[in-house]
Amino acid sequence: MSTQATAVVDEAVMSRVGRFTDRDAFTATGWCSIERTLAVIGTRSAMVLLREAFMGGRRFDDLARRTGLSDAVAAQRLKQLVADGVMAQVPYQEPGARTRYEYVLTSRGRELFPVIVALMQWGDGLDVKPGGLELVHADCGATLGPVVACAAGHEVTVDQTEVRLNRKAAR
Amino acid sequence: MSTQATAVVDEAVMSRVGRFTDRDAFTATGWCSIERTLAVIGTRSAMVLLREAFMGGRRFDDLARRTGLSDAVAAQRLKQLVADGVMAQVPYQEPGARTRYEYVLTSRGRELFPVIVALMQWGDGLDVKPGGLELVHADCGATLGPVVACAAGHEVTVDQTEVRLNRKAAR
Repeated sequence: MSTQATAVVDEAVMSRVGRFTDRDAFTATGWCSIERTLAVIGTRSAMVLLREAFMGGRRFDDLARRTGLSDAVAAQRLKQLVADGVMAQVPYQEPGARTRYEYVLTSRGRELFPVIVALMQWGDGLDVKPGGLELVHADCGATLGPVVACAAGHEVTVDQTEVRLNRKAAR
Repeated sequence: MSTQATAVVDEAVMSRVGRFTDRDAFTATGWCSIERTLAVIGTRSAMVLLREAFMGGRRFDDLARRTGLSDAVAAQRLKQLVADGVMAQVPYQEPGARTRYEYVLTSRGRELFPVIVALMQWGDGLDVKPGGLELVHADCGATLGPVVACAAGHEVTVDQTEVRLNRKAAR
């Protein structure tokens, strides 16, 4: 049925339930949590800075160099990430030098771990050349990947997912 | 130690192991799977179109309307998503009308499910006003979230994660 011979069409999607069975019962404008996230970290410069922070980068010169961003772009983006509560500045001092600041993830920043892992794994599958890095579980050595699970601990696929209006949301 | 009284600093990051203990043993340029992913879906327009596709949107008019994108932007972005193998066009025909095409996720597109869920959950935590939608497991009714797990089935946190050079990558 597909017009692209190479594309495998998978028509399973989330099921809309309750009032959201009528998709227009919900206007995403101003309510979409995905868009809220993208407003904070949805730029290439933010994502590559976060990548380096997750891998242990802290100092400005190091972050700028490892991301390939200009100093001006790196400085402006880090300032925004600090303002948004994703990163924080902590002081450090080398012998004989004045106090300077380095950048570390906040707890909110660290909550982006599944985003980082999900983006990384999807990119690994983009072509035959594998990505340059891999993530493994320190305890058992098995490689990591993103999983969607429910609060009861079941792994959940798209076609087992229901999407509904959030009853807690004021409307 | 933080300069922001409100930010909770969490200094746990991934551990670099093997040759990557020297962070400069790896140059991310051209090798970063996160950047590869962002090159395909790293725009707001791509992400909101994918959001609608995951929630059952298929027809152009519907996708453009529900995302708030202009027809020109929606058309151009959908064309690119089809070219990149994330979505595909399938024909449909209403009685008395000519054949038209609607958009569905490919299997590669559907593999973005953890990305969508991770971005959505992080955005839910951005402020006191909850997101407008919630995802639940159809079988048990529990809410969904993103998890990082290893191939052996253990749930893994950032500080249990090791990052190393991919031995399969040609360098």
